[in-house]
Amino acid sequence: MATKHIATWANELNYSDLPQDVIQSASRSFYNWVGCAIGGSDHPATTIAYNSLSPFFGPPQSSLLGRKGAKIDAQHAALINGIASHVHDYDDTHLDTIIHPTGPVASALLAVAEWKGGFSGKEFLLALIVGIEVECKLGLAVWPEHYDVGWHITSTTGSIGAAAAVSKLLGLSVEQMNHALGVAATQVIGLREVFGSHTKSFHPGRAAQSGLIAAVLAQGGYTSSETAIEAKRGWANVVGATKSSIPESLEKWLGMDNQDLGLASTNGGRWEILRNSFKPYPCGIVIHPVIDGCSQLHRDIAKLRLEVADIKEVKAKVHPLVLELTGKRKPKDGLEGKFSVFHGGAIGLIFGKGTPRQYEDEAVRDLAVIEVRNKIECVADTTIAADETKIVLTMVDGNVLEKHVKYAVGSIEAPMDDQMLRQKFEDQCAAVLGGGARSASTKCWNVEDMSDIAEIARLA
Amino acid sequence: MATKHIATWANELNYSDLPQDVIQSASRSFYNWVGCAIGGSDHPATTIAYNSLSPFFGPPQSSLLGRKGAKIDAQHAALINGIASHVHDYDDTHLDTIIHPTGPVASALLAVAEWKGGFSGKEFLLALIVGIEVECKLGLAVWPEHYDVGWHITSTTGSIGAAAAVSKLLGLSVEQMNHALGVAATQVIGLREVFGSHTKSFHPGRAAQSGLIAAVLAQGGYTSSETAIEAKRGWANVVGATKSSIPESLEKWLGMDNQDLGLASTNGGRWEILRNSFKPYPCGIVIHPVIDGCSQLHRDIAKLRLEVADIKEVKAKVHPLVLELTGKRKPKDGLEGKFSVFHGGAIGLIFGKGTPRQYEDEAVRDLAVIEVRNKIECVADTTIAADETKIVLTMVDGNVLEKHVKYAVGSIEAPMDDQMLRQKFEDQCAAVLGGGARSASTKCWNVEDMSDIAEIARLA
Repeated sequence: MATKHIATWANELNYSDLPQDVIQSASRSFYNWVGCAIGGSDHPATTIAYNSLSPFFGPPQSSLLGRKGAKIDAQHAALINGIASHVHDYDDTHLDTIIHPTGPVASALLAVAEWKGGFSGKEFLLALIVGIEVECKLGLAVWPEHYDVGWHITSTTGSIGAAAAVSKLLGLSVEQMNHALGVAATQVIGLREVFGSHTKSFHPGRAAQSGLIAAVLAQGGYTSSETAIEAKRGWANVVGATKSSIPESLEKWLGMDNQDLGLASTNGGRWEILRNSFKPYPCGIVIHPVIDGCSQLHRDIAKLRLEVADIKEVKAKVHPLVLELTGKRKPKDGLEGKFSVFHGGAIGLIFGKGTPRQYEDEAVRDLAVIEVRNKIECVADTTIAADETKIVLTMVDGNVLEKHVKYAVGSIEAPMDDQMLRQKFEDQCAAVLGGGARSASTKCWNVEDMSDIAEIARLA
Repeated sequence: MATKHIATWANELNYSDLPQDVIQSASRSFYNWVGCAIGGSDHPATTIAYNSLSPFFGPPQSSLLGRKGAKIDAQHAALINGIASHVHDYDDTHLDTIIHPTGPVASALLAVAEWKGGFSGKEFLLALIVGIEVECKLGLAVWPEHYDVGWHITSTTGSIGAAAAVSKLLGLSVEQMNHALGVAATQVIGLREVFGSHTKSFHPGRAAQSGLIAAVLAQGGYTSSETAIEAKRGWANVVGATKSSIPESLEKWLGMDNQDLGLASTNGGRWEILRNSFKPYPCGIVIHPVIDGCSQLHRDIAKLRLEVADIKEVKAKVHPLVLELTGKRKPKDGLEGKFSVFHGGAIGLIFGKGTPRQYEDEAVRDLAVIEVRNKIECVADTTIAADETKIVLTMVDGNVLEKHVKYAVGSIEAPMDDQMLRQKFEDQCAAVLGGGARSASTKCWNVEDMSDIAEIARLA
């Protein structure tokens, strides 16, 4: 009875049950999501969806992050904010499943919270945690076969997580939430085949919307199966890609095999949200060690009062996958820049960071960037781990600087600290909000103490 | 390149390419669908969905069949009409795949046609045929493994069929339609686990809506994969449940293995819509031979000037599945009546038909019905086929009537004739439209000659 188990656990969970680090991780996850949604609000995938679907928009219930004064119905707000938050591939990652967990859940929750009104930051965070835990536990049960066969695990688990979260926020009964999980489970969103197109970011948005309507329908009395997740022809078996072991692994990850655990803590003994991580750079994770190392070298160069222009050559030992996936020597635009470890190294050396601005078309075509890029060499080395690099930089005057990045920033071992997370937020929002980025950042940072979460939604 | 192949075929298909029997089958399919949607418009699954989602409704673009004066945005109209049309399990069936093909396609198309305005009956039928062919060809490629593992094949193929149909109606380019198919393919709706709940009828509605927004997004420039259906991590392989043979069987059913065929007829050499069938009775298909035979006996009794009250006993030899699936001796309400071959026999004998009215709670509890029901015996016989029955009826005066139904009405071998189809329509609509049922029927029957298809949508 995994579906009912989830509904019961979610229904009974109280804010006072939450460890402080779980609350903190949820606050940071939400904060990072808001920044991503604002940062992606003017991307073509977001604006095409907005414009194309605008004929269908209902009453002004919920705001679109980053789009001044735009209020639309909560369903479409969930969709559009969900698209925006994922479109730069810059959102969070639950590293054990590579689910980007906050997108589907927060997109649905924020839309509903503003529509219904009167929810505190604490109520919001509690529902957010419910949704993220549900997503990641389901993901663990079907990982990795489910992803390998071709499902985009963020959205396939996302609609169910969003349904759990909205059900929790709206105070649905266990029975209603059970049905909501069923209506969500039957909407399986996301094939990996569409990666590289606008439709990738459609996935978390559509998952948010699917979970939202599942909860609203169930609240109205719509019925579904009560065993939609674990039944023979239910979600886990049908999408799990393996035929036999799914229900057992589902029970394991839900902690149902441990009779000693009380219900409020039957999450398998660990909180998945503590394993959520944040990307410092809006590109494939394999490039991160090089950008990280080069950004550190940028600061070393400044400290030594040297000039980046006086670099003679840079040699980086990298994991073989880095060149295989991101070996583009001469990227032509922003998108290609995301697949060039050389561009990543150059922006690290020149700017000391890799924000979306460094991945705009002009940045990739900038002659100064190209000059540094051409001085960088990468050597595949099987003794180097995927999140590691060893860089040797030689200046024209013969000076040699070395940098060993053992764990790239953003990994579980070297998480982004608060300062970095705030910088990321403000870098993303500056282009959209201008001078308002700093105050938006401060407001979002303190979500736990907010008396009405809708204040966030109204950030223009 | 199956996806592009479908888009090209659909784009190039002209009304003049359509054989007359294909047009006729499409007209009948649409006619039958309108009756089902009106008949299901006041079912709880429909009204809960309408009421729960009404806060999100957008501008009044499209009508809800059977709901006087209700116009809502086209997206939600597609959803609600789709739910209504499937909720009595009374819609059409493509017997080779058990897809109920018209629901997802017509629900999306009619909503868009009314919203945009100015489409003739012929333009509408052409788009409807495109959608139904796409659904059924995709279904053939993944049948039966796809259904066996737990997918509701009506809606999993339905969103793609709806996208193709709406793309055709709106005149999208091949490239745009190609992307629309991708956006639709990534929304996989429908687990069989939820059968028996409201969520079953949610499936064709949500598929209609998913296909509709896919076409609208693609028209606006939203991109997807161009090989979303046939790629390694695309629709057919991911949902096909078998790993190796899907792309080949896809090409076979699309006629891509036959180089001699011109593109306009690359539908594998046959039109799937010609294999669409209509249910005479709103219950599981295994009971149909008994209802059919008993309805024929009803007419025989009348001809002989005998009385149903004077029946002594009825013995029917049936396929073993009949008693296994529908052996309920004492059904307590309408829903249980659908699982009682004895109730089916009784209403056939008394009324000469089995319409939704004969499956209302009161009808199942009617003492006269119960009396006849108790006189019916069924014997499982392995020599009897699933669509066959042999009935022996004995009157109290010793008179014996026999009836051998070799193919139940509604099968490919014994399709419902026009008269029966019209009677079905009017029986369904009478409860909702009262005296307007007949004129609605006449209007819908002549869809091919209609200058503006929106007239249908405005049937209250």
